[in-house]
Amino acid sequence: MTAYTVQGLDIGELAEHFGTPLYVYDGDALRQQFEDLRARLHSRLEIFFSLKSNPNVSICTVLGSLGARAEVSSLAELATALRAGIASDDILFLGPGKSEQELRACLTERVHAIVCESFGELELIDRLAAEYGVRAPVVLRVNPGFAVKGSKLTMGGKPRQFGIDEDQLLGAPDLCERHANVRVAGIQTYMGTRILSEDVVAENTRMILDLAERLSAKLGFPLDLVDVGGGLGVAYFDGERDLDVDVLAGLLNPMIEEFTARNPATRMVMELGRYLTAPSGIYVVRVRYVKTSMGERFAIADGGTNHHMAAVGIGSFVKRNFPVRLLSRSAEPTGPWTVTGPLCTPNDTLAKAVVLPDLRPGDLLGVLRSGAYGPSASPVLFLSHGHPAEVLVIDGESRLIRERDGVDDLLRQQRMPISGKEKHG
Amino acid sequence: MTAYTVQGLDIGELAEHFGTPLYVYDGDALRQQFEDLRARLHSRLEIFFSLKSNPNVSICTVLGSLGARAEVSSLAELATALRAGIASDDILFLGPGKSEQELRACLTERVHAIVCESFGELELIDRLAAEYGVRAPVVLRVNPGFAVKGSKLTMGGKPRQFGIDEDQLLGAPDLCERHANVRVAGIQTYMGTRILSEDVVAENTRMILDLAERLSAKLGFPLDLVDVGGGLGVAYFDGERDLDVDVLAGLLNPMIEEFTARNPATRMVMELGRYLTAPSGIYVVRVRYVKTSMGERFAIADGGTNHHMAAVGIGSFVKRNFPVRLLSRSAEPTGPWTVTGPLCTPNDTLAKAVVLPDLRPGDLLGVLRSGAYGPSASPVLFLSHGHPAEVLVIDGESRLIRERDGVDDLLRQQRMPISGKEKHG
Repeated sequence: MTAYTVQGLDIGELAEHFGTPLYVYDGDALRQQFEDLRARLHSRLEIFFSLKSNPNVSICTVLGSLGARAEVSSLAELATALRAGIASDDILFLGPGKSEQELRACLTERVHAIVCESFGELELIDRLAAEYGVRAPVVLRVNPGFAVKGSKLTMGGKPRQFGIDEDQLLGAPDLCERHANVRVAGIQTYMGTRILSEDVVAENTRMILDLAERLSAKLGFPLDLVDVGGGLGVAYFDGERDLDVDVLAGLLNPMIEEFTARNPATRMVMELGRYLTAPSGIYVVRVRYVKTSMGERFAIADGGTNHHMAAVGIGSFVKRNFPVRLLSRSAEPTGPWTVTGPLCTPNDTLAKAVVLPDLRPGDLLGVLRSGAYGPSASPVLFLSHGHPAEVLVIDGESRLIRERDGVDDLLRQQRMPISGKEKHG
Repeated sequence: MTAYTVQGLDIGELAEHFGTPLYVYDGDALRQQFEDLRARLHSRLEIFFSLKSNPNVSICTVLGSLGARAEVSSLAELATALRAGIASDDILFLGPGKSEQELRACLTERVHAIVCESFGELELIDRLAAEYGVRAPVVLRVNPGFAVKGSKLTMGGKPRQFGIDEDQLLGAPDLCERHANVRVAGIQTYMGTRILSEDVVAENTRMILDLAERLSAKLGFPLDLVDVGGGLGVAYFDGERDLDVDVLAGLLNPMIEEFTARNPATRMVMELGRYLTAPSGIYVVRVRYVKTSMGERFAIADGGTNHHMAAVGIGSFVKRNFPVRLLSRSAEPTGPWTVTGPLCTPNDTLAKAVVLPDLRPGDLLGVLRSGAYGPSASPVLFLSHGHPAEVLVIDGESRLIRERDGVDDLLRQQRMPISGKEKHG
């Protein structure tokens, strides 16, 4: 019986100690993922961690301590980045539907820049900045007229809620003058997500850098900052391969070098979420029951899509499995198993017909590469099971970084202003 | 400017008072929906409210006060039903992956019956009942060998994680004797969800009643309870129509009458979640920004799929819109709008190309029929915006039944056992 280990810690002992279902993050792997990229990318290209991929303050602290900056999209994400020790001048606030309260926080916390996504938002920022007597630093998010194929959700070249269409910006040459309390000083463009081709990342970057210089010239704003988006993917499914960081750096670095030679004062930004956090996380569930139904073998686990909705590609047409392993012992695979969770819906499938050893109650299964878009992107309240615990293993020690929700946590925010008796017929 | 009202209360005032995004439930409509059905269905058919559709304790209290019983699937749902005043003898506990702790709670709280979903679970219940010195009341969930078409997620006649295959039960005639601490006393079968045909409900019920008597005879257990499932739908999309309760009762009641004549002591159960709660709920969002992108009009609202993932049928291949209305004023529709939320993903679409009046920032939009599978079935933590407030309007008064999550609520369960400084290179 050889169990899976994280930095030498037995996964069975972690599961016993912290309970299941459980997210376990390998902090050393998280550091390594960041540092491997950081060491190879041109030093002028700053890495901004997208907290949406994993909003845990301890994850953010690990990345921040290595030099990651932060890209945030809500008050709670902003608070998290600040608590994690990231300087406000290294924070960008982004999002298509920012509230007035969020914009005010950007100004009072002095984030490096607001990534502005519409003409209406620019007017609002202008008005609020006037109120505070400041000049608001703004980067324009551009919805480009072009697209580059090769990402999973292509963002350029089509109607989107994000940013301002390139054409509309080109048709507003007096935009900056019209907003005296705003300092427009750069652009952001995000071309797509889950890109696994180095060439596509490079082509996106090349086109965004070109767009930045064209728009800057046309609208007459300085290029204090250019955010080339990101969208770097990780391999989840059969047939996918991870990006080769050497190849990527070999393509990107000369572009960055050329651009900074022409624009020596410009901060260059790449946003990364999934790429940084996905590989280091495992979703660990324990098998509660096994059964055969009409010839198909099922393992029913204590957690499912309520904590990991992405595992079978919900929202995609094609259902494919993340890598799933038996963690608690070594055994030879014997055939397909469908792994389901505790929910009362047939959609609660964590893995469909994945080849595994014979399973039995008590076994621990792990969904690998699950450090991004896990519980925070899942319906954690469904059937009121609540959020799982999260554990970070770092420097060989395991530390709880998110408490499991108990019944009281789940009911804390509910109110019962009427009584059953009072209303009874 | 005529605004939408709930029991005479102006939706604009509710939105102002409680903030947006907001779920508003019309408690009188909720009562009416229950009572219209209750008055027509055979009195022997008991209505069990499925808390998974809406786990709010106040919603459960309203239904409980009218005589609804409860079907629960987690410790928090059990606690909610009890707090709502539902007697433990009127509670069924169901779910394919029950924990030992949940089963223990069933025994100590003395729920009416555990709906057992596998042979393994039956063994576990038997062992726990022996430990407590009780005989555990159990209803077997059966995965039937037959299917009836006409539901959205058909459950019978195919491999499922739910229940025990009919064939396997028929092949285990000594099942009851083998589990001396369990009193097997009925069956439950759930045939599918979102059924909008009275004939399909009736046909399901007929086949389940028949199955119950066959299994009871073959395995030699009494029929203390037969749970015919439910799956009654509501019309969401163009071309759908609601069930006609008179027609439904006309088909079901004679079957119930016949069955109870043969089995006068049997409790007859129908589980209803979506059918009871969906029509009375509205998801209310406020438009923050409007824009045109490449000819398509977008309204970006303060809430989206993070609170209402079902609105555009995520998880379905076909994206269709729930009914969406401009609530804050009257105006003529002018053309299609895509309504999106605050998330940084193009999937955050609340309504796609729905025909609405010209929209502007500040407008209130409502997604109707949203009282079931709303925030509890959505990724409320995504981008850390948190759970919306929920308000119940009852007897002409509005009452907060769920506080909106604030930043502190969102971060309460997180821990930061490492400091940024300590780890800095």
